[in-house]
Amino acid sequence: MSTLQLYIGNKNYSSWSMRPWVLMKQAGIGFEEVMVRFDSFEADSRFKAVVGAVNPTGKVPVLVDGPIVVWDTLAIAEYLAERFPDKQLWPADTAARAHARSICAEMHAGFGALRNHCGMNIEASLHDVGARLMREEPAVAADLARIGQMWEGLLQQHGGPMLFGDFGIADAYYAPVATRIRTYGLPVPAAVDAYIDRLYALPGVKAWVDEALAEHDFVPMDEPYRKSRD
Amino acid sequence: MSTLQLYIGNKNYSSWSMRPWVLMKQAGIGFEEVMVRFDSFEADSRFKAVVGAVNPTGKVPVLVDGPIVVWDTLAIAEYLAERFPDKQLWPADTAARAHARSICAEMHAGFGALRNHCGMNIEASLHDVGARLMREEPAVAADLARIGQMWEGLLQQHGGPMLFGDFGIADAYYAPVATRIRTYGLPVPAAVDAYIDRLYALPGVKAWVDEALAEHDFVPMDEPYRKSRD
Ligand SMILES: N[C@@H](CCC(=O)N[C@@H](CS)C(=O)NCC(=O)O)C(=O)O
Ligand SMILES: N[C@@H](CCC(=O)N[C@@H](CS)C(=O)NCC(=O)O)C(=O)O
Repeated sequence: MSTLQLYIGNKNYSSWSMRPWVLMKQAGIGFEEVMVRFDSFEADSRFKAVVGAVNPTGKVPVLVDGPIVVWDTLAIAEYLAERFPDKQLWPADTAARAHARSICAEMHAGFGALRNHCGMNIEASLHDVGARLMREEPAVAADLARIGQMWEGLLQQHGGPMLFGDFGIADAYYAPVATRIRTYGLPVPAAVDAYIDRLYALPGVKAWVDEALAEHDFVPMDEPYRKSRD
Repeated sequence: MSTLQLYIGNKNYSSWSMRPWVLMKQAGIGFEEVMVRFDSFEADSRFKAVVGAVNPTGKVPVLVDGPIVVWDTLAIAEYLAERFPDKQLWPADTAARAHARSICAEMHAGFGALRNHCGMNIEASLHDVGARLMREEPAVAADLARIGQMWEGLLQQHGGPMLFGDFGIADAYYAPVATRIRTYGLPVPAAVDAYIDRLYALPGVKAWVDEALAEHDFVPMDEPYRKSRD
């Protein structure tokens, strides 16, 4: 077997990169990380030169498995689920698996308001911004309400500790949302808050968060609310 | 086995609904269609009342399989691929399957400019709008260029007639893009043009297009370029 390689962006900012990285780390799937700093997304950037050489879309994450190149988080998740069946990355039960796929696809193309207004920024604390957004942006509040209702329902239905019982793709897929809830101090029901604590305590999530905190980088295009690191 | 039910929107406009409908029709998977007209997407619309009763996101398409509810086109595609393995909805080869999943996920969250500016409208002919967009909206032209490059490459690699040889999820997934290319008269390489002709000739695609043409509905929110049907 060849060594899997995962191309990712800055750990503090790249929410899409976080998903497969956390998934593999937490599931114990070995891989080599290729970190490509977000210098810019212009055609002449180093980021585009490096990523564009492996992925026609010029985006991270990208998984390289010998001659096979997989891009986009959902395709990467399905690829890993097939390649490592013993890891049970999707729930074993058919109905639960269909449900997990539905909410991951919902995340993949949805929650535009939350994603636009609350860009991932693990290292920052922007509770004042969060409070303002909750007052002024009903679409952000609606996205948050849907996530709260979804997570509460799943935790109740499957009894926790993760969304579908054991850790899997759905938890990795929503982990960047959990960091946004913390960064922007967004209000969530108590059961959701407790789930986020459990998520942060998973070694795979903790490793990503710790490395994001250690990054000490400031990328202006990802910082609509700050002029510098405090 | 229970009868599969597929909730869809207007055939002329609902690009997301078209994907699983064409997939099932062309693959010979039986289902009952539940068409919910686009009256509006407001909270008090009939559309939201009917769709919201089965799908927490309030969107179409939704697949109902007895007690199992699957929403979002990508989750529906994966569900069908698992439930009907003999239909080979994904390519059998691992590398080709990873590639097909990558381009479907790319479509699912991408091509924003093409989708926003060239909403699906099978019945309309809007070549003048298409010509203007090609001049004035570089992002539309860039989306189209990426699609042309993707399709040409796949047709060459797998030898046609469909993107990965035989018909499958990727073709169903890009079928609404093919209708946009025709509606807006967008310029594509000859090999791509020929592929679109072959796609339109598939019975599953032809059935959807014929029913879209027979719909004779005019939904103003989906008609940025026309005041009425001509
Ligand atoms: N749908 C893609 C989204 C990937 C994405 O947008 N990645 C960002 C970084 S988090 C990127 O590479 N952006 C570069 C660009 O937009 O040019 C996925 O799920 O992987
Ligand atoms: N990501 C979803 C998108 C579904 C979608 O946006 N469907 C449209 C009709 S084509 C809809 O139901 N819109 C209702 C709304 O936005 O409120 C999928 O792939 O199924």
